[in-house]
Amino acid sequence: EDPTLFLENGEFSLRAADEAVKYALESGTGTGVYKRAEVHIGPPILNPKKIICVGLNYADHIKEMNRELPTHPVVFAKFSNTLMGPNEPFPLRTSLTEKLDYEGELAFVIGKRAYRVSEEEALDYVAGYTVANDITARDMQKRTVQWLQGKTLDKSLPLGPWLVTLDEIKNSQALSIKTSVNGVVRQSSNTANLVFNVNRLVAFLSDFITLEPGDIIITGTPGGVGEAQGLFLQDGDVVKVEIEGIGTIETKIIKED
Amino acid sequence: EDPTLFLENGEFSLRAADEAVKYALESGTGTGVYKRAEVHIGPPILNPKKIICVGLNYADHIKEMNRELPTHPVVFAKFSNTLMGPNEPFPLRTSLTEKLDYEGELAFVIGKRAYRVSEEEALDYVAGYTVANDITARDMQKRTVQWLQGKTLDKSLPLGPWLVTLDEIKNSQALSIKTSVNGVVRQSSNTANLVFNVNRLVAFLSDFITLEPGDIIITGTPGGVGEAQGLFLQDGDVVKVEIEGIGTIETKIIKED
Repeated sequence: EDPTLFLENGEFSLRAADEAVKYALESGTGTGVYKRAEVHIGPPILNPKKIICVGLNYADHIKEMNRELPTHPVVFAKFSNTLMGPNEPFPLRTSLTEKLDYEGELAFVIGKRAYRVSEEEALDYVAGYTVANDITARDMQKRTVQWLQGKTLDKSLPLGPWLVTLDEIKNSQALSIKTSVNGVVRQSSNTANLVFNVNRLVAFLSDFITLEPGDIIITGTPGGVGEAQGLFLQDGDVVKVEIEGIGTIETKIIKED
Repeated sequence: EDPTLFLENGEFSLRAADEAVKYALESGTGTGVYKRAEVHIGPPILNPKKIICVGLNYADHIKEMNRELPTHPVVFAKFSNTLMGPNEPFPLRTSLTEKLDYEGELAFVIGKRAYRVSEEEALDYVAGYTVANDITARDMQKRTVQWLQGKTLDKSLPLGPWLVTLDEIKNSQALSIKTSVNGVVRQSSNTANLVFNVNRLVAFLSDFITLEPGDIIITGTPGGVGEAQGLFLQDGDVVKVEIEGIGTIETKIIKED
């Protein structure tokens, strides 16, 4: 049930999975082959020890939030209560927040324990990439000096639709990333614009935090968040985040109180 | 190995443990009875899903940090890489930080899943109390707008010496709390001075975060941190945090690079 062990076994897991898939496809439905629409997909990681979020990591988003280019990555946390699958709805409680916002982001997952790893070696410790929406309650984020309370609402991290391994993405810094609400594009950028890229983040973080298999790192959002336009998410809105070479996650906002 | 299951079984676990202890004591050494000095004690919780920290929660500490009394609790995170036992040393890397500081704090641990729990019911969801030192790298905490990177260094949360259950502490708001460095008292306060007490914190947090058994909440530190006096922790320093009715944790700082 927990994919962390799968990650820890790296190449071996991948070969075993390839063979299992080949066998199932040859044998046909009834032996583990299902149609995409018939299955419920959860998040690709269930119980990470850490979800580390990077803030202010695209120059255009830094500008729209009226902040300076940081000398060090800005990092904050979400907890595992935020994780949900790539197509599950988000329950909006307007009694908690009137300023719900999206943040489309490239996420990566750690595959091997990492401590004091260099930028050059960094990718050896990455299991793969996935798509995240760092759903944020802006009013809760800003009512105190620390953002955590606006960042860690239950189910505020739709993740998926799957983990794409490094053999399929040679360069994580050349992927278009787009967020739309009800079909209207709101964020449109490219991971080439990341201030601190995946290699630098692994090196920076592992210098003082031991990273563990299954740890999720979300790399920050480009310009175009709702807040910059005074537009917040409402009951019935559908938010899509799409990253080239990985896939799309889609979250419907459903008012609960 | 993981005490979370023990917590989930509440009263039943306590009765079973009482009986096991009684049996072992009657049977003598060799059947599970050891001297305190002969055993290594780890932290009372090993793999919490969350470590939620409350900042600026004693009026005197708020004043010494030149901040306003908050309208809502300020919350931030540490990750589980920070956990260590009550008498283990802390490895100081001066290449990372030149401003290492202590924060003695009352911690409590969640015993039952809690979502939207009232202040009145709050203690039904608390398994017990323990002592924490929220070791902080002030320079890393303040170099960006979010504190996390200065708060989550490996081993920066000595915790223990044990979990004291609610039957032994009737009122968590009447406990003296003291921190000393090399025998000199630096922090001396009482949990009566908490701005947001345990009941309010459970109600506040569980309103938007599902709390799980084993989650650790550290409630904030009183006035007297090293930074306010320009005194930071050095190689060889011994930091003790003592809370009335719970116990003492002691951390030796050992320079590593």
